[in-house]
Formats: sequence, structure tokens, C-alpha cells
Amino acid sequence: MTRWRLTLEYDGTPFVGWQRQDNGPSVQEALETAATRFCQETPRACAGGRTDGGVHARAMTAHLDIEKPTTADVLRDALNHHLRPAPIVVLDAREAPPDFHARFSARARRYEYLILNRRAPSALDAGRVWRLPARLDAAAMHAAAQVLVGAHDFSTFRAAQCQAKSPVKTLSEIAVTRRRDIIAVHVAAPSFLHHQVRSIVGSLVNIGVGRWSARDLGDALAACDRRRCGQVAPAAGLYFLCAVYDSDAGEAR
Amino acid sequence: MTRWRLTLEYDGTPFVGWQRQDNGPSVQEALETAATRFCQETPRACAGGRTDGGVHARAMTAHLDIEKPTTADVLRDALNHHLRPAPIVVLDAREAPPDFHARFSARARRYEYLILNRRAPSALDAGRVWRLPARLDAAAMHAAAQVLVGAHDFSTFRAAQCQAKSPVKTLSEIAVTRRRDIIAVHVAAPSFLHHQVRSIVGSLVNIGVGRWSARDLGDALAACDRRRCGQVAPAAGLYFLCAVYDSDAGEAR
Repeated sequence: MTRWRLTLEYDGTPFVGWQRQDNGPSVQEALETAATRFCQETPRACAGGRTDGGVHARAMTAHLDIEKPTTADVLRDALNHHLRPAPIVVLDAREAPPDFHARFSARARRYEYLILNRRAPSALDAGRVWRLPARLDAAAMHAAAQVLVGAHDFSTFRAAQCQAKSPVKTLSEIAVTRRRDIIAVHVAAPSFLHHQVRSIVGSLVNIGVGRWSARDLGDALAACDRRRCGQVAPAAGLYFLCAVYDSDAGEAR
Repeated sequence: MTRWRLTLEYDGTPFVGWQRQDNGPSVQEALETAATRFCQETPRACAGGRTDGGVHARAMTAHLDIEKPTTADVLRDALNHHLRPAPIVVLDAREAPPDFHARFSARARRYEYLILNRRAPSALDAGRVWRLPARLDAAAMHAAAQVLVGAHDFSTFRAAQCQAKSPVKTLSEIAVTRRRDIIAVHVAAPSFLHHQVRSIVGSLVNIGVGRWSARDLGDALAACDRRRCGQVAPAAGLYFLCAVYDSDAGEAR
């Protein structure tokens, strides 16, 4: 039995999310099915982050255990073969220690949210960005967002269906940058609440258009009240960038 | 009658190309149909570059003449409304002088070609890049490509069906750059032959993998022989960036 660590890129559009669900195709199911076609076993895949329906991943870490002897290169290419035509690819496969766990070994997660800030819809990036016509002040969004950094009760930015035991999370980093008409919101934390990133982004947009002051954001956070949250940003603009593991320390990523 | 100058972004995947053809949907036809729905006239659209099937555009200039009185904002939004769900959007509309011609007034065109240089296929950029697994030496490709700059007989890099009167063209600029696993080939010229960019990119790939020396590229150019061309790179990686007009001098683009 070998524990394999995989790095996945996927387009979340056609999926109900990472996790297997009864109501539609999931990334987990597609990956497990591809693995079964390769090894005739029924491995269970576990991921570093459980993305929602429509959310994309640039470098999602997952692990699964396979009895069949193989090599990293063969496994990667075989999974990519069997994953077709689903928009999921294995960027990398490598042997992991038996105690490596994609979810529990991760000490941080990084996400990016992309807003296309222009009047015209997107032709080339449809399904990949949230298009907002009203001009957003990215510098104001960035400055205001810093109030969220640190350990806080994030109840305001938490989905009703969130299953986390506590609403207290530590946001390590948040940065809002503009490059031409793309505004990127980059966040990092040990872990996130359900819809936390999208709730934060939707609230920051209120600042970007001048509807909220920076103080309004701090007040919304302090209120610990879901009704004080801005619009939850749509899934299409959200990208799981990577999970961070202690075992990767010193490795260029 | 007003001459309108439009800037278009489109995903070329579902189209036979810019130009109206009997064998499938074209960008020109989609735009003209949208315009007709708006003004009940049958304007003819003309573009700064005639992209092939599957080739994308980030900022294609086009013009068309409309009798119906309107404003730039109304026209842009109406065309975007009527273009849906085709992956074509009008980024900008503005009045142009009656002698402005998207094709004949353009003094240069810029294209970009994107190669995804990695083993795994693309999930997020499928249909937007040419994926090549073999490691390419972008610096060698850039250095070798400089032999193409200037006025040359480009017969080697010209499609058999090219209708240009002369195979002599002037390549103003070519640059090959790498950013992580994306290699971008950027070219500029007053005008191009049919398949010239894709023929050049395919030939540069021969250099990138070490199959050709820089000298081989110069020899292929000098031979003026189509059989000396490398593989014609697929359409999916090609982007028409913009056409350049004298009337835009001094304007930030």
C-alpha cells in the first residue's frame, strides 16, 4: 500500500464541489473513479480544501492509498488519461509518508478571488471571474481589509450551513491588488469557514464602490451577525491556490 | 449615418473565424446579426485582422455604419445584449470619422501565442493554450527568432491558401518570454501572411526542444520553401491583441 500525494488543477464549473454528493458530479468522485479504472481498487480521496460547486483549484493537494505497485509518473499520466474529458488534471504525483494527510497535515490554505472590473461581460474568462461594472477602489478595499487580519469571530462572514465547531478563525493575510481591469483578492489562513472568502469579498466590494467605509467593515465583523455581511461573491471567481504543509518547508512552490 | 469603431474580445473556439463563411458561425456574422437586431439595418462589419477558426481576440478593432441615431454607451450595451450567448463582447464603442477603416487605417497588428509548457494537460485553460510536455528553452527561442525581424520573403511561413499578393512582409518585433510554465510569443508587424504567426511559433518550438539550431531557422527562412516550415501551431493558443492606428497616437492603450 502506498500513500500518493497528488496536486490537482480543476475547473469547478461542472462540479457540485470537491466532495461527493448525491446531487451531481464531484471532483472527488471523478478522481476516485479514475483511480479505480487504473488500479481496480476503490481508494478514497481526501483533499486539502473542500471547494464548493463552481469553485476552481490551481494546485489542490489530495491523497489516496493504492495497493497496485506503480511509479509517480505512471500514476499521474494514468489518472490524467482516465480523468478525461472532465476538466481535472493531475499536475504532480509523489509518494507520501503513511502519516501524510492532505487535510489534517495542512497548516495553511491560500485562495484567490478574481473580479473583472469593467462594463463589458467577459468572453475569454466567462465562468472564471466575477464581473462588476461599477468602478472599484482596490486601494481602499486593501486598506479596509486589514482589520480582518488576526484571530476573530467571523460569524458575520460564515454561511448558515457552516459545520465548523467555532466561528473563530485566524486570517493570516489579505491583499487586494489591481492589474488593469482585474482585481485580485488574495487570502491565507490556517483554515476557513464555509463561504468565508466569498463573504469577505462581497463585503469588500461594498467598500470598493463607496457604499461602506472601512469602519463599516470593522463594525460588521464586530457585530458577529450574518445579516451584516455584504453579498456573497459568486463561486466562479474563487480559486483554491494551494495548501501549505510543514513537510514542504524549504521547497520552492 | 455614423461610422462606429468597436473594440471586441472573443473566444474563437466556436467560430470558423472572423470572416463570414458558409461552413459555420463566424464572429462577423454574429456581430452583424446583433447590430441588425439593434437597428433593423444590415450593416457590414469590417475588422482590423481576419482571425482564423479557433483564434481568439483580446481587443479586435472593427467598424460598422449605422443610420439609427444612438450613443456609444447605448450601442455597446445593446450589442452586448444581442450578442449573448456567443462568447463575443464589445469592450468599447466610439464614433469614428467617416474615413476611418478598421482594416485599411491600421498600421500594425499585434498577436500573442501562448504555450503551456508542462506534462499535464490544462484544466483551467483548455482551448486557450497549446500544451507541450517537452521542456522548451524560451531564451534560445527568443534569440533565434530575432533573425526573422525585418523585411523578408516569408514563403516558408505562409499557408498554401494565403491570398496575399506578395510573400514579403516586415516583422517589426518578436519576443519569447517564459513565466512559470507559460511561454508567450509576442509579434508585431504592419500585416501578416495567412498562418504566418502559427508557422513561426511551430518552427520556434523546434528550437525550443533542441531539434533545430538558430541557424536552421535562418536557413528555413532563406529557403523560401513551405516544406522547410515546422509544425503549424494550433489555433487555440493564438490571440489577436490589437490593431494600431495613427489616430490613436498619444493615447494610452
